[in-house]
Amino acid sequence: MKWNTKITKVEPNHLVTKGYRQEDLIGNRPFAHIVYLILKGELPSKEYGEMMDAILSATIDHGVTSPSSIAARTVATGEVPLPTAVAAGILSIGDAHGGAIEKGAKFFQDGIKRMRKEGFNVNEIADILVRESREKNKKILGFGHRVHTSDPRTKKLYYIAEKMQISKDHIALTKAIEESFEKIVGKKLPINVDGAIAAIISDMGFDWRLGKAFFLIGRTAGLTAQVYEEQTEFKPMRKLCDIDCEYDGPKERDLPS
Amino acid sequence: MKWNTKITKVEPNHLVTKGYRQEDLIGNRPFAHIVYLILKGELPSKEYGEMMDAILSATIDHGVTSPSSIAARTVATGEVPLPTAVAAGILSIGDAHGGAIEKGAKFFQDGIKRMRKEGFNVNEIADILVRESREKNKKILGFGHRVHTSDPRTKKLYYIAEKMQISKDHIALTKAIEESFEKIVGKKLPINVDGAIAAIISDMGFDWRLGKAFFLIGRTAGLTAQVYEEQTEFKPMRKLCDIDCEYDGPKERDLPS
Amino acid sequence: MKWNTKITKVEPNHLVTKGYRQEDLIGNRPFAHIVYLILKGELPSKEYGEMMDAILSATIDHGVTSPSSIAARTVATGEVPLPTAVAAGILSIGDAHGGAIEKGAKFFQDGIKRMRKEGFNVNEIADILVRESREKNKKILGFGHRVHTSDPRTKKLYYIAEKMQISKDHIALTKAIEESFEKIVGKKLPINVDGAIAAIISDMGFDWRLGKAFFLIGRTAGLTAQVYEEQTEFKPMRKLCDIDCEYDGPKERDLPS
Amino acid sequence: MKWNTKITKVEPNHLVTKGYRQEDLIGNRPFAHIVYLILKGELPSKEYGEMMDAILSATIDHGVTSPSSIAARTVATGEVPLPTAVAAGILSIGDAHGGAIEKGAKFFQDGIKRMRKEGFNVNEIADILVRESREKNKKILGFGHRVHTSDPRTKKLYYIAEKMQISKDHIALTKAIEESFEKIVGKKLPINVDGAIAAIISDMGFDWRLGKAFFLIGRTAGLTAQVYEEQTEFKPMRKLCDIDCEYDGPKERDLPS
Repeated sequence: MKWNTKITKVEPNHLVTKGYRQEDLIGNRPFAHIVYLILKGELPSKEYGEMMDAILSATIDHGVTSPSSIAARTVATGEVPLPTAVAAGILSIGDAHGGAIEKGAKFFQDGIKRMRKEGFNVNEIADILVRESREKNKKILGFGHRVHTSDPRTKKLYYIAEKMQISKDHIALTKAIEESFEKIVGKKLPINVDGAIAAIISDMGFDWRLGKAFFLIGRTAGLTAQVYEEQTEFKPMRKLCDIDCEYDGPKERDLPS
Repeated sequence: MKWNTKITKVEPNHLVTKGYRQEDLIGNRPFAHIVYLILKGELPSKEYGEMMDAILSATIDHGVTSPSSIAARTVATGEVPLPTAVAAGILSIGDAHGGAIEKGAKFFQDGIKRMRKEGFNVNEIADILVRESREKNKKILGFGHRVHTSDPRTKKLYYIAEKMQISKDHIALTKAIEESFEKIVGKKLPINVDGAIAAIISDMGFDWRLGKAFFLIGRTAGLTAQVYEEQTEFKPMRKLCDIDCEYDGPKERDLPS
Repeated sequence: MKWNTKITKVEPNHLVTKGYRQEDLIGNRPFAHIVYLILKGELPSKEYGEMMDAILSATIDHGVTSPSSIAARTVATGEVPLPTAVAAGILSIGDAHGGAIEKGAKFFQDGIKRMRKEGFNVNEIADILVRESREKNKKILGFGHRVHTSDPRTKKLYYIAEKMQISKDHIALTKAIEESFEKIVGKKLPINVDGAIAAIISDMGFDWRLGKAFFLIGRTAGLTAQVYEEQTEFKPMRKLCDIDCEYDGPKERDLPS
Repeated sequence: MKWNTKITKVEPNHLVTKGYRQEDLIGNRPFAHIVYLILKGELPSKEYGEMMDAILSATIDHGVTSPSSIAARTVATGEVPLPTAVAAGILSIGDAHGGAIEKGAKFFQDGIKRMRKEGFNVNEIADILVRESREKNKKILGFGHRVHTSDPRTKKLYYIAEKMQISKDHIALTKAIEESFEKIVGKKLPINVDGAIAAIISDMGFDWRLGKAFFLIGRTAGLTAQVYEEQTEFKPMRKLCDIDCEYDGPKERDLPS
C-alpha cells in the first residue's frame, strides 16, 4: 500500500514543494505563482504568473447573491466555525456554478484538437460547433450571463492575455464562436467570465479537469469575507432572504387507521 | 498507533455492531432502536425505543425556510451530487440551529446535578436558574420559537414521554422553568422542540454532547427530500430567494497610483 | 419568483408533511415509514414500511475503514462541531462509495424497461447485459465487494423482500445476472449490499436518482457514532492512520534567479 | 429585512469591491493584496501586501498527512466533484488544526492589551502568561509542532516581518514567551508557524476572529492539488491509509427475545 505523491515532501524542519524549499518560495515568488507551481509542477514565466494572478483576482467575489455566498452565509447563521461556513459555499461550486470553466475548457480543448485533426481553421470549427449545439439543442457553456452583457472581468482578462502573449487558439476559438453565433442565430451571445477563464487556462496548457479549481481558489477569499461579515455584523439565525414558496403537496388529511 | 473502537467489527461476511450481528438487527428491531443502540451501547427497552423513534420523527422537516434547508437547496442549485447538497444543510447545524438541544441538555443536566448537590427541589432550582439568567442577561436555551408559541411536536413528545414513563427530573425542570419565568418576568416563555428533546434525552441518560445528533439524524431525511425536490422540480442556478441587500462599503474610487 | 414545495407546510403551531399533521405522525408511525412518506409522498403499506426500515438498518455502519468513516473521524480530529465532522463523511458518498445504489438502480430499471419493450424474459436480458458489459469492458455495478463474498446484509434484505412479497422483476434480474455471469465468465460475482438495495428500491418503485439517499440516511447514524467516539475517546489531532507515501516529485532545486 | 454589505456591489457590467472597480484591481494589484483588501477594507501598503503574500504562501501545503489533506483525499476516493473533496479538507480546519492562529492571536492580543493596561514590559507580561498557563495546566497555543523544532516557514515569515518593519509588540511577545518558557520550565518550546502567523496578523491589526482565514485561504490551493492528484493518479475507493484498529465493544451476542 505504498504510494507516491508529487506535491510536498515533509521532513523535520524541511518542506519541499514541487522541488522548491518552501522558505525559498515564501516571499520570493507571489502567491499566485506558487499556486501555479503546485497545480502545474513548474514555476510560471513572468507572463504566465501574471495571468494566473489575474485569474484568481477575477474570481474573488460576486456579491451576496451568488449561490456560494448564500450557502456560506446561511450556514454561518447557524453559528458554526468560519471554515465550516466557507466550506458550505465551496460545496455549491458544481456543474452549474463555476462548472462552465471545467466544461467550457473541455469543449474548447476538444474543439481545437478536432480542428487540427480534421484540417479546419478556427472560423470553420466555430461554425461547426455552433451548428451542432443548435441541432442538439445544447447550451454553449461559457457564454451568456444572468447579470452582465459585457463583463468587465472578461474584458480585462482578455486584455491581459493579449498583452502577455498568452492568447492562442483557444481564445481565438471563443471569439470565433461569438461571431458564428451572431451570424447563424442572429443575436449576440457574449463570452462570460467562466468561458474566458476556460479559454485562457486552455491556452496556458492546463488540464480541463482543473477548471473548477481556479474559481474555487480565488472565491475562497471572497467567501471568507462574506462569512466574516455575517458573523461579525449580524445575529445568528437571522433571516437573510425572503422565500416566496407555497405548499402544494397533498391536502391535509388524517392518518389511515 | 493501535487503537480500539466499540462500534462495529468488520470481518468477511460478518458484521457485528455493539455485539449484535447486523443480520439479526435488520428487520428484527426498528431502525430507531438500532440508532439508539449505536449511540448508547445497548438496545432500548420498548418504551425507550418508542421515545427514540418519536424524537427522530419530530425533527424530520421544518419546511423550506430553515437555514439547513436553504443551505442544502442553494448548494443543490449549483448542480452537485445529492449527498454534497445534503451535507451543506447539515453544516448549518450549529450553536444557533439545533444547538439548543446540546446546550439545553447541558443546562438541564447541570441544573439537576446542582439541585441534588445543594438540596433544592425542582421549583427552587428553576427560580434560581431563571433569576441567574436574567442577571447575566443570558437567554434560556430551548425556550421560545421564531414561529410557534405552542409547538405541536413539543406537546406530542411530552405526551409520549409521560405515557412511556420516561419523564423524570429534567422534564420536570423545564416545566418549572416555564412557571418561574412567568412568575418572575411576567410573560410566557414556552419550551420549544429543541428544549423538549434536550430534556427528554437527559431523562433518558444521554450525554449532552450528543445533543445535536438527534436533530442531525432525523433532519437528514428531510434535507434529502428538500434536495431531491430541488434537483427534480427546478432548474439549476435558479434564484430561490430574494435578497434585499444594499452595498454600503467604501464609495467607488480609483486605485492609488 | 413564487414557487411551490410538496414537502412541508409551516404555519404557527401547525406543521403538515405530505398532508399529515406532524403530531399525528410522531409516535404513530415508525420513523422509517415517515422517511418513506417524505421521499415517496405516501405512507407505505406495512410490508413496504418494514422493507424501508430494514434498508435503513442495513446501511447503518461498516466500521472505521470505510471512506465516509475515515473522512468523518479525520475531520473530527481537527476539533470541529459534531455535525461538521458528520457532514464530511457524507461528502464522500459519491459515484464510487454508495454510488452503486444509484447507478445500479438505473441499470436495473433500464434493463427491465428494455426487457419489456424488446420482449425478452429475465434470463435473456441478463445474458445480454452481462455480454454487453464484457464487450464494453465495463464493471457491472452492485456486484462484488472488497471484503464480503456473501454479505449477511444482502441475504437478510433479500429474505425480507421475499417474505414481504416485494420481490419482483428487478430482484429477479439481479439473480439472473449472477447466473449469467457465472455461465458466461466462469466465476461467481455475487451481488453486494448496494446492488441489493438498488434492486429492492427499484421493485418498490423508487426513482433511481434517490439511490444514494438510502445509504446516506442510514449511514448518518453510524457516522454520528463514529464522530462521537472520536470526540470523546481520543485526543484532537491524533494520528488515526498510517500513510506509507513517498515524495517522488521534482528533485530538490534552487529557485531560478 | 433590508440589510447592507460592505464587500461587493454588483450591477450589470459593473463590479465594485471595497470601493474599487474589479477591472482596476485585476492585474494591477497582486491577488494577495486583493485578499488583504477584501478582509481589511483597504489596500495594503507595499510592505503589508508582501507580508500578506508571504503568509498565504507559507500555508499552501504540508504534505499528505495533515488532517485536511487526508480528509480531502479520502472524500475524493468516493468519486465526487473536486470542490466537494476540497471542502471536506477545509471542514477539518478547527480548534486543533489551524486553530492556534485564531486562539494564539486572541491570546497575544489580550496579553498586549493587559501589558499596556497594567503597565508591564513585554518580558514581564511573558513571564506572567507562562506562569499562569503552567498553573492552570494549559497549553500555550502556537508553540511546539508534531514534526518541526525549527520550522523553516516560521523563520522566513519572521525575517520578512522584520525586513518590512511590521514586527511590533505581538511578535516581541512571542519571543519573550520563548525565553520565559525556557527560563521557567527549563526546556525550549519554539514558536510554530501557526503562532508566528498569529503574532504577525496581530501586529498588522487583524481581528483574531479572522485567524483561521489565513490558513484556510492559502491551504485551499494545496488541498486542490492534493485532490487533483488523487483524482488523476489513483483509483476510486483505493485504500490510502492503514488503520490498526480493533473492535473492543460488547462481545458478540444474540438479540434478546
